[in-house]
Amino acid sequence: MALMSVRPHLQITQIVSPNPRIHTKTTSHYNNPLTRFVSFRSMSAVKGRGGCSVIRSSLIDPDGGPLVDLVVPERERVARRGEAEGMPKVRLGKIDLEWVHVVSEGWANPLRGFMREDQYLQSLHFNSFRLDDGSFVNMSLPIVLAIDDEDKEAIGSSPDVALVGPNGDLVAILRSVEIYKHNKEERIARTWGTTAPGLPYVEEVIAPAGNWLIGGDLEVLEPIKYNDGLDHYRLSPRQLRKEFDKRQADAVFAFQLRNPVHNGHALLMNDTRRRLLELGYKNPILLLHPLGGFVKADDVPLDVRMEQHSKVLEDGVLDPETTIVAIFPSPMHYAGPTEVQWHAKARINAGANFYIVGRDPAGMGHPTEKRDLYDPDHGKKVLSMAPGLEKLNILPFRVAAYDTVAKKMAFFDPSRAKDFLFISGTKMRTYARSGESPPDGFMCPGGWKVLVQYYESFQAEGAGQPAVLSV
Amino acid sequence: MALMSVRPHLQITQIVSPNPRIHTKTTSHYNNPLTRFVSFRSMSAVKGRGGCSVIRSSLIDPDGGPLVDLVVPERERVARRGEAEGMPKVRLGKIDLEWVHVVSEGWANPLRGFMREDQYLQSLHFNSFRLDDGSFVNMSLPIVLAIDDEDKEAIGSSPDVALVGPNGDLVAILRSVEIYKHNKEERIARTWGTTAPGLPYVEEVIAPAGNWLIGGDLEVLEPIKYNDGLDHYRLSPRQLRKEFDKRQADAVFAFQLRNPVHNGHALLMNDTRRRLLELGYKNPILLLHPLGGFVKADDVPLDVRMEQHSKVLEDGVLDPETTIVAIFPSPMHYAGPTEVQWHAKARINAGANFYIVGRDPAGMGHPTEKRDLYDPDHGKKVLSMAPGLEKLNILPFRVAAYDTVAKKMAFFDPSRAKDFLFISGTKMRTYARSGESPPDGFMCPGGWKVLVQYYESFQAEGAGQPAVLSV
Repeated sequence: MALMSVRPHLQITQIVSPNPRIHTKTTSHYNNPLTRFVSFRSMSAVKGRGGCSVIRSSLIDPDGGPLVDLVVPERERVARRGEAEGMPKVRLGKIDLEWVHVVSEGWANPLRGFMREDQYLQSLHFNSFRLDDGSFVNMSLPIVLAIDDEDKEAIGSSPDVALVGPNGDLVAILRSVEIYKHNKEERIARTWGTTAPGLPYVEEVIAPAGNWLIGGDLEVLEPIKYNDGLDHYRLSPRQLRKEFDKRQADAVFAFQLRNPVHNGHALLMNDTRRRLLELGYKNPILLLHPLGGFVKADDVPLDVRMEQHSKVLEDGVLDPETTIVAIFPSPMHYAGPTEVQWHAKARINAGANFYIVGRDPAGMGHPTEKRDLYDPDHGKKVLSMAPGLEKLNILPFRVAAYDTVAKKMAFFDPSRAKDFLFISGTKMRTYARSGESPPDGFMCPGGWKVLVQYYESFQAEGAGQPAVLSV
Repeated sequence: MALMSVRPHLQITQIVSPNPRIHTKTTSHYNNPLTRFVSFRSMSAVKGRGGCSVIRSSLIDPDGGPLVDLVVPERERVARRGEAEGMPKVRLGKIDLEWVHVVSEGWANPLRGFMREDQYLQSLHFNSFRLDDGSFVNMSLPIVLAIDDEDKEAIGSSPDVALVGPNGDLVAILRSVEIYKHNKEERIARTWGTTAPGLPYVEEVIAPAGNWLIGGDLEVLEPIKYNDGLDHYRLSPRQLRKEFDKRQADAVFAFQLRNPVHNGHALLMNDTRRRLLELGYKNPILLLHPLGGFVKADDVPLDVRMEQHSKVLEDGVLDPETTIVAIFPSPMHYAGPTEVQWHAKARINAGANFYIVGRDPAGMGHPTEKRDLYDPDHGKKVLSMAPGLEKLNILPFRVAAYDTVAKKMAFFDPSRAKDFLFISGTKMRTYARSGESPPDGFMCPGGWKVLVQYYESFQAEGAGQPAVLSV
């Protein structure tokens, strides 16, 4: 076997830029930025053949085989519900239910339920699962269900358990369960790279949870609905793939966000589409994919964000013909480089083969120190190295800021840094609260109005900083 | 692509037992314990052919290509030293020097120096490196060199740096250096799964270290020697492979330890050899491989352990004909499931294709809570799942204890648990201190005498517990 060099360029070459000529942060080892474009299967498929059936098969394969669908078929629901009635019951929290939703639709493909211990350990230590054929799928966040001593006792040696929603309704069956220890400290340390108090997901979910985890295969009794007026935005990976096919997409680029869309984001998304067209794609479709599950208290709530996103499309900042807006039902961990892998992996399952990654993805301020919790560059670096994500084309986000000369959002040009204004979340909130307008061109008027109305009603003084320049 | 099941048995089947019939802790998914024996390449090679040349090539391949040898050839040393004199200098601590030693001999193959950032991130997040051919080698511990602000300033933009030993002597050159941030909290959390104060390696090495890491390619000016009377035990991976060839080994089983060898360990090692013979190997050789680098203050010092191990061979408890005793020069992290991967990986590079793993490998008590820091079963589970270790046969350690009926160390039989006596480190120390003998058959008399003499001279009252039943 030849000597394999282990050099910095090994992984970094796998970060590709839409246009390598203007990729400002190349490394000296940046060899062939088109490697992953060239190997992208749908490109040749579309060029070689054509027609709807080819386009359909050109979407990227889900991770580890066909998409799982863990919702019990309608005709079997009554019987299955009857069976569940007789099982020991575990009560789900709101966020547990979000995970049931996520797993049931195949976002975590090929995962079929809450993780058993061997899956949990692989996720925690390696951020990936090894499959039977020796290949890896990415799986960076433990998707687990915690129970307490009483639950464990009540379950006893029962192989199956019924899961009950926060409102007391039967939601799912967990089959062939395995109960194992929930070492919270280790889980937190290995997932977040810190155990400092004040991590939102830890405070909300892990700290109050029991000392056991229960894994097993999910059978969900009916599709999870929230009845909040937004369910029509909650397209499953299967529904999204169908929609991409319908629009005859030959490339799908996903944009994960949990903040309002400003014109800097829009610039980036439109620019990405332009570059994909230049590369020979005929119809790249944008998946504008706001996260819809748990977010920390000072993030803008989902309903406000969805209204804001609607206005952005109505105002023509993004083209509705080539954009699909849908909700990604996952809760947010704020676990930086570990979580961004999950965000990317889930979008593979929804059919996206290009993933846009920005500065400090899924990051936040350190909960107890005056610094970012993560190195802002680690997210995209780790994403480019992550086992199981080799087939995804990573598009590094170029920083956009307000260009005071051009009077619009533009890609930051370090050679005339003084012309650029970075509008932080705090700054944006100050504008919105005071009724003052941000600089012309920062955000479309319709979208801005939604935020002003929200911040006017937002009474919690002294809350954290929704970072409007983040996604 | 067929649906890949992600089930608990996926990885667990890769734990093989020397004799599946008496493997007491099988899981229900324990399918084919011989899978990895059957695929072991040297077995068929030896059976199919024979003779010295075949045996030589039957040793397991080093990770990622031929063994590196980073020591400058003798004829070039004067020139290289002259060159180094003119470079910015970084002073190494004692443990940094141990790492220089480890890397220079290929224990961390194919790593050629201190990790650059992309290697560090892969190690931290994935415990493995992806190589150019898409395969993985295991790399669970960050092997890094920390520098402070002053060092960084002094280095400036110099591509190469000279490394100076703790005594001020020139030791090595680090080429094409890369300096990046040392986020200690994140490194500690992801490596140990805790940030609790009191982790020995953290207190000794990381806490006092600088806020930068410097990676680069090592050129070591001459072989690292300790001049402590034990250097003849410090065989490099290359020397060990030569020795295994000389002895015509067709299987090499490694036993990592940092404690005295008692008869329970010996039972296990002898039993492993017997089972390998049963499986058709003609000459399995034991690598008894005590860790020789940094250990915590209450572990038995290396010189005492080496003397004790000598007595064990002299007393005939282990057969000198089929045993090689050598020092593994790595420092100890006490990082449990993360570290055991390093211990196993390094032994692949030395030619071992079987690795014995016990309860709670590389574990210790939680530094601030009254519990084990790690789940005692996680080490062997994680080892069996670890990317890059697929080619290594993992032999789970069966617990041995003192059988008060048979009056000897024996494999623990849970059906007559009351007959067994677990002799803890504390208990052993109490025996040794008081001059009282342990039960007959616990340890060979020669080995025991070495310990008594050590503990008699050991004045530090109230120190921790060297766990004699651990390895």
